[in-house]
Amino acid sequence: MDSTDRVTSVARVRVERVGGTGGGHRGDVVVVEEPLHVHVEHRGLLHLLGSTMRTPGHDLELAAGLAVGEGVVRSRVDLAGVRPCRDGEGGGAGDVAVVVRDSAEIDVSRLGRVTTPSSACGLCGRDEIDAVLAAMPSVPREVMVDADVLAALPDLMREQQTLFRRTGGLHAAALATAGGEVLVVREDVGRHNAVDKVVGHALMHDLRPDVLVVSGRAGFEIVQKAAMAGIPVVAAVSAPTSLSVDTAREAGLTLVAFVRDGHLNVYAGSHRLTPRHPR
Amino acid sequence: MDSTDRVTSVARVRVERVGGTGGGHRGDVVVVEEPLHVHVEHRGLLHLLGSTMRTPGHDLELAAGLAVGEGVVRSRVDLAGVRPCRDGEGGGAGDVAVVVRDSAEIDVSRLGRVTTPSSACGLCGRDEIDAVLAAMPSVPREVMVDADVLAALPDLMREQQTLFRRTGGLHAAALATAGGEVLVVREDVGRHNAVDKVVGHALMHDLRPDVLVVSGRAGFEIVQKAAMAGIPVVAAVSAPTSLSVDTAREAGLTLVAFVRDGHLNVYAGSHRLTPRHPR
Repeated sequence: MDSTDRVTSVARVRVERVGGTGGGHRGDVVVVEEPLHVHVEHRGLLHLLGSTMRTPGHDLELAAGLAVGEGVVRSRVDLAGVRPCRDGEGGGAGDVAVVVRDSAEIDVSRLGRVTTPSSACGLCGRDEIDAVLAAMPSVPREVMVDADVLAALPDLMREQQTLFRRTGGLHAAALATAGGEVLVVREDVGRHNAVDKVVGHALMHDLRPDVLVVSGRAGFEIVQKAAMAGIPVVAAVSAPTSLSVDTAREAGLTLVAFVRDGHLNVYAGSHRLTPRHPR
Repeated sequence: MDSTDRVTSVARVRVERVGGTGGGHRGDVVVVEEPLHVHVEHRGLLHLLGSTMRTPGHDLELAAGLAVGEGVVRSRVDLAGVRPCRDGEGGGAGDVAVVVRDSAEIDVSRLGRVTTPSSACGLCGRDEIDAVLAAMPSVPREVMVDADVLAALPDLMREQQTLFRRTGGLHAAALATAGGEVLVVREDVGRHNAVDKVVGHALMHDLRPDVLVVSGRAGFEIVQKAAMAGIPVVAAVSAPTSLSVDTAREAGLTLVAFVRDGHLNVYAGSHRLTPRHPR
């Protein structure tokens, strides 16, 4: 389904190694960072949803996931398809369009704004944050996850981080079941893009993941994307932030972080974890 | 000068530790992530420059650095000051205004756009990237830097990463001289914010740094910000990207990455490094 997969995610550069015994010129591989414009097609009109600097590959999934995160696509029912734009359509060849069914009602006024789901953001006022919280699916579904299963997920994800092993320059995100099965792993130069890719994959393949795993930190936008996608548990290898903890608690999500070496810290929603620990 | 320094950069949360011998509830410290709106005041009018999700602290420096990165402030001569906004002015209390001298000519049409200097970006078309490259100072100044001095900078920076030690959730940026003196270190939940803060600090204190050091990866926006600030050398602890390598080469900057354990890789501008290595 994702015809953009045959693109180049890494580039070869000539590099000079300095220091130690392995000095001198050699070839190196770096991760590709390129712009992608994502549009929404609804009732025959194309609207710009947003632009992101991403690592090429799985662009259609990225676009679908971005549409979920932005609240444009609520479920598989709303989605008619995701397709590459034609030359001259939208910003140009290489752009992607998320096609929303005519029957779906979407707020076109929210489109056309520059989408910036990251620490550098257009979504920055407290009013805007409150609006996002209000737009989140009301109650994430309940599921029980074994803490040991959660603790093992980053290693399982890492086994599939093929680009990171080659370039050392990528974030990863994965979706998993409560039973510990990894459903999909995606990598990207932007952590939010990696999350959009796995969320889009789940939408396009009708998956119902219980856990979102991220290779780095869990900032606000990661928790927000999990909430919008209806994923009840977020597990981060690195640290959370004040706003991500607040958001997880307000949205009723489970947030665990510093998932390393068989340990984890529970910042929100500990009732979904087994064994239950005394409060 | 920076009256916003007495803010809270970390927050206390209650956390449950699971696994190993140290389980149970305890207090934890997480980094604060909060929105900041930055305005430009010019000839009596306030324009929104951009918004960013940042860690509070050194907000005035962040605002000044963002104005440099966006090409609004070219030098200390253009800057009349940086100040907190008054209640009711701009987006509200907590906002910051970069005051540009009346004598400076700035392109107001470039303001008001949402600024998104990150992997999730509004600056995403090839045309826009070309425009940024064209706006960069033509030739970064020449300076010779010893490779061993560069290799030592991340450790020197880490000694001053006080928030990271407490929260594990922060990026850092530093400015240094070619002689290896660290001029300033700033931390933030967003890597671009940390860079904006040190760039703003340099502008406000009339420093002339030779090296920008970043604790993580060097993506496009990091190299772009160095170029706009006239800093000739960028040193990253982690990986570069294809676009950051291309940008450094086009802008004539030196880019070294994977600066770890006494080694480094030179991706662009090796002529500034001593000892010179055979090409």
